[in-house]
Amino acid sequence: MSTTPAISQLTANTIRGLAIDGVQAANSGHPGMPLGMADVATVIYTRYLRYDPTCPDWFDRDRFVLSAGHGSMLLYAVLHLTGIGRDGRTHAEKPIDIDELKQFRQWGARCAGHPEHGEAPGIETTTGPLGQGFCNAVGMALAETHLRARFGAHQMDHWTYGICSDGDLMEGISGEAASLAGHLGLARCIILWDDNGITIDGTTEVAFTEDVLARFVAYGWHVQRVDGHNQEAVAAAIDAARAVTDKPSLIACKTTIGYGSPNKAGKSAVHGAPLGVDEVKLTKTALGLDPERSFVVPDSVYAHVRLKDAGRKAERQAWQARVQAAQDDAFGRVLANAEDKSLDISQIAWPAYAVGTKTSTRKASQAALQAICSAVPEVIGGSADLAESNLTHMKASGAFQRATPTGRNLNFGIREHAMASMCNGISLHGGLRPYNATFLIFHDYHRPAVRLSALMRQPVVYVYTHDSVWVGEDGPTHQPIETLQALRLIPNLETFRPCDANEANEAWREALTRTDGPVALAFTRQDLPVLDRSNGGPDGLRRGGYVLTETPNATVTLIATGSEVWLAADAAATLATEGIAARVVNLPCLERFDKQDAAYRSSVLGALPRVSVEAGSTRGWERYVGLDGASVGIDRFGASGPGKTVSENLGLNVPNIVATVKQVLGA
Amino acid sequence: MSTTPAISQLTANTIRGLAIDGVQAANSGHPGMPLGMADVATVIYTRYLRYDPTCPDWFDRDRFVLSAGHGSMLLYAVLHLTGIGRDGRTHAEKPIDIDELKQFRQWGARCAGHPEHGEAPGIETTTGPLGQGFCNAVGMALAETHLRARFGAHQMDHWTYGICSDGDLMEGISGEAASLAGHLGLARCIILWDDNGITIDGTTEVAFTEDVLARFVAYGWHVQRVDGHNQEAVAAAIDAARAVTDKPSLIACKTTIGYGSPNKAGKSAVHGAPLGVDEVKLTKTALGLDPERSFVVPDSVYAHVRLKDAGRKAERQAWQARVQAAQDDAFGRVLANAEDKSLDISQIAWPAYAVGTKTSTRKASQAALQAICSAVPEVIGGSADLAESNLTHMKASGAFQRATPTGRNLNFGIREHAMASMCNGISLHGGLRPYNATFLIFHDYHRPAVRLSALMRQPVVYVYTHDSVWVGEDGPTHQPIETLQALRLIPNLETFRPCDANEANEAWREALTRTDGPVALAFTRQDLPVLDRSNGGPDGLRRGGYVLTETPNATVTLIATGSEVWLAADAAATLATEGIAARVVNLPCLERFDKQDAAYRSSVLGALPRVSVEAGSTRGWERYVGLDGASVGIDRFGASGPGKTVSENLGLNVPNIVATVKQVLGA
Repeated sequence: MSTTPAISQLTANTIRGLAIDGVQAANSGHPGMPLGMADVATVIYTRYLRYDPTCPDWFDRDRFVLSAGHGSMLLYAVLHLTGIGRDGRTHAEKPIDIDELKQFRQWGARCAGHPEHGEAPGIETTTGPLGQGFCNAVGMALAETHLRARFGAHQMDHWTYGICSDGDLMEGISGEAASLAGHLGLARCIILWDDNGITIDGTTEVAFTEDVLARFVAYGWHVQRVDGHNQEAVAAAIDAARAVTDKPSLIACKTTIGYGSPNKAGKSAVHGAPLGVDEVKLTKTALGLDPERSFVVPDSVYAHVRLKDAGRKAERQAWQARVQAAQDDAFGRVLANAEDKSLDISQIAWPAYAVGTKTSTRKASQAALQAICSAVPEVIGGSADLAESNLTHMKASGAFQRATPTGRNLNFGIREHAMASMCNGISLHGGLRPYNATFLIFHDYHRPAVRLSALMRQPVVYVYTHDSVWVGEDGPTHQPIETLQALRLIPNLETFRPCDANEANEAWREALTRTDGPVALAFTRQDLPVLDRSNGGPDGLRRGGYVLTETPNATVTLIATGSEVWLAADAAATLATEGIAARVVNLPCLERFDKQDAAYRSSVLGALPRVSVEAGSTRGWERYVGLDGASVGIDRFGASGPGKTVSENLGLNVPNIVATVKQVLGA
Repeated sequence: MSTTPAISQLTANTIRGLAIDGVQAANSGHPGMPLGMADVATVIYTRYLRYDPTCPDWFDRDRFVLSAGHGSMLLYAVLHLTGIGRDGRTHAEKPIDIDELKQFRQWGARCAGHPEHGEAPGIETTTGPLGQGFCNAVGMALAETHLRARFGAHQMDHWTYGICSDGDLMEGISGEAASLAGHLGLARCIILWDDNGITIDGTTEVAFTEDVLARFVAYGWHVQRVDGHNQEAVAAAIDAARAVTDKPSLIACKTTIGYGSPNKAGKSAVHGAPLGVDEVKLTKTALGLDPERSFVVPDSVYAHVRLKDAGRKAERQAWQARVQAAQDDAFGRVLANAEDKSLDISQIAWPAYAVGTKTSTRKASQAALQAICSAVPEVIGGSADLAESNLTHMKASGAFQRATPTGRNLNFGIREHAMASMCNGISLHGGLRPYNATFLIFHDYHRPAVRLSALMRQPVVYVYTHDSVWVGEDGPTHQPIETLQALRLIPNLETFRPCDANEANEAWREALTRTDGPVALAFTRQDLPVLDRSNGGPDGLRRGGYVLTETPNATVTLIATGSEVWLAADAAATLATEGIAARVVNLPCLERFDKQDAAYRSSVLGALPRVSVEAGSTRGWERYVGLDGASVGIDRFGASGPGKTVSENLGLNVPNIVATVKQVLGA
């Protein structure tokens, strides 16, 4: 093994200096990890990572994921050195400059406490919540593998590198993704583990003594162990990992947290607190840096990092030429999606349902998905082992498996959390629109990843079937009560709960049309009558809510969502027989409805007393019914029994709605 | 290896018959797993499990957890055979009778779709959401290990057995708990894995081809592989597992799902759907049962299962005699807790804080916890590697580690989900009051387990620090926005957000006093002034809300929680200078407040226009401010920056509150 050139060592130490200066300037942050992993980052960015600094979004670039997001200064420092984004026109497209490193963790700065996707070029994903970056990387590698299989290595042929921490590997989510990545043989995924043995609460000896590499071998990974401060050893390990064609790779990089700090290296105190002014100086001295100067980058380091830039650009241009020569229209669609997340959905032959027929919205979703599958080849997805219940299998495509990577049906196994986080990775990779599916109740199992879809504005489609106590016999563990309202609380997420089969189409349409955030689709297990929704017009669902039935001389407005819309309509019919005229309003997406102008909202909700009906928590419905109205819902856990029985016994029935209306009206 | 006696085989087949009859009667349920695991269950219940059918709650009984809760008919059938609860007085205390097996999955029946803790004796936990039971079992074993170390094997000396499925092992949560159980060497935990290779969507070959046993070896478990239909082999494996004193055990029981069904055995179709009338008959014939009769239990089977009942009772009585002889008052406290979850908190020397001083509520919680530690030795808990930030370390106790199992500080590692689920197991075991801690934002990482605490009414204490955007520099991934409202949606959960250090004590007091459900405590990272709360009186927090400041001639009511209470008071002071008198209301627990009578609620909220202030989602606040009021809050993701800056820039400041009040008043 050759000796690491001095310039490579200086590059790593420059990263170290920038990282501890940034943390010190902010008086907040995590210096330990950047000090420990600067050698690894140097190796990845100077010797392996394929990118063009003048074209950060080059679709066939290698992806780098910093799963240990608390080490964000490592990423900012190295991105600064590369100058990725140097041809950018807007501020957001331009490289992180040296002054921005000084603004680390300040209001409005792009160098946020944790890497935030979209803030600056080269930040491939938002990390911080542990385990998520690991799964994003697996998702990115899956996307690449799939696209390479479909469109050829001349158009898609890159790697995904990741750096993860002990914490990433303790979280269950990474175990889920690792098991699946091993099963699928996602060989383009190389994760370098910062094996420093230290966490916030001390050494990993207090809680984490398992044999991690043996565990990954059990998952089907290729594993190696190297000295993470020996750049040649790290490079040799990456070479070896790249030579493995049937397994993802985990490289345990034995490092010292806070490497270089004479008094704090190897201690948990260096994990998440600034070194202090004196220790910064001592550390710089120990690293051969000028202790009296901050935010210093020698020209030779810039030159070293950027040495291959001409070749990098040429490589990207060669790719572009190959793609142009190929004239592959299907790949052109993929590129368009990669550009702005858009999809051409004009060719979808949506199924249609006659008013008065009955079907569940999950079955309608199934039919919609078949139409989508044929017309929108960028759609890929699957279920956490509930495809038979969620009805999310695309029959015209095969399963994505090791031997059949062109398949668009993903078998995630019973791993909801990794499923969602991998879909974030697929979406971040670009070129594909991922969906995933489980029972609505199991939203909780992957809620952290849904939050990240929303935070990163990734248009991942979440299909949630069995969306109420109508689940029935499976009982309270399987019956969502609080879930719909909990979904609506997540900023940037839109939750659609269509009232019938035709509206299920429209919900899918909105999910595919949206480009700036995730969409949750709540579908029923049980059959619902297809309603006459002509009053709402084509824009009804798109606006989040509309009047289903205007009634002359109405004295009350009934508001419902999803499977309770027909129930509200039934209640209105009964009320009519008792001389009470009721309007019926359908609010399939509260978040979307809230964004409409006040005039529209008023026109829909009306000035009459209001009663809402939804098979779930009433908390939050006061926004629509006020304190003078009332909500029919369920504020307790459900119960096991046939769905209709459970629903009716918990108050979702016409007599209860009628009684509630009368109470509100004082009638 | 000896041959399994015919009666043991008949017992297993009787369980099989009951299970398929139950599913068939319900026309709903999961016959595959009970058919596959009936032999294993027979071995556990007839040869190993220590229980006294006349005293189901015997504290030193062995625990059995059916993690694969969808196989509930297996549990109901075997509990019926044992007659556990035969001396019960109330319906809930009595054994499941044969007629109840016929009512499987019907409204009001104790034989719910999934096992529901509390419905019938012998159901040790509620399962169904996969992976949870596995972690509950680890938590139970941890509780036993701890109590045995503290009180001696003459008082505590039992085992925890579990049955889990492929799905349990795919979920990340079980990996987290397995890693920790291996680390801690929880040898009293024996999990039998129904290794049938089948899930809903097909064979495990589509998504789960890892080497599970190798993975568990990597975690530090003892592993074995046996034929799950050979009762002698299963028994030999359990014997071997019990002989291992330093490792938990996983026994892979190779089984055929739907064993005995001529046409459906080994197929995924038998997982979650009734066999059908014809196949039930064919299966019974194949198993040597009468195909024409249903719900049949030969007397010889009852006799066989209950053969050792006298000895079982004697064993329990001998334990009781030992405990009585020991006259161990500390163990007496543990027993009292095991009985009804109560704690004697009378000796806690609560810290006190002078009005006008400043401290964060997390620091107040830290001080309270030290006082609790000394006075309430049943309290045990820890953090998911954030003890240094959550401030949840009990200084007067040591760490629970393999060599020091008497320690009451639990190092969960970065495993929030397993942490919460293990705490459910500790609480279900009884004798201890578990708490656990993480940042509020990471509630999402263990929300499914919190829901189960609530569903099972287990008084687990959830400590959530860093409860708002005041987290600051860590940025949006670490700043809760929607989390407080999401907590409040979970039925049976109570969320306390105290406004200052003294109220933090009171919140802890409520958490320890509550016996019928979990409590979430939201604490600040930042300092808060200690307020004059004398107006609220001693019952203020206990009632969930109270008037902090009554103001003569008030024209508006400001409502706030936690760290926004002083801000609301500040705003009121500013408003006063502008001639607007404002009342200030503190609502530390909305759920508790909602339970107060209408008169009290009206007296607190008042008839004036209302404005709420909380550093989080406004959705849901309309319940308290109505449509004529307004909410100051945050309905977008946060941002990185110093906490005060972020909070103020997002509208949590006096000028914005004042402006909002004026808008509401039309002033």
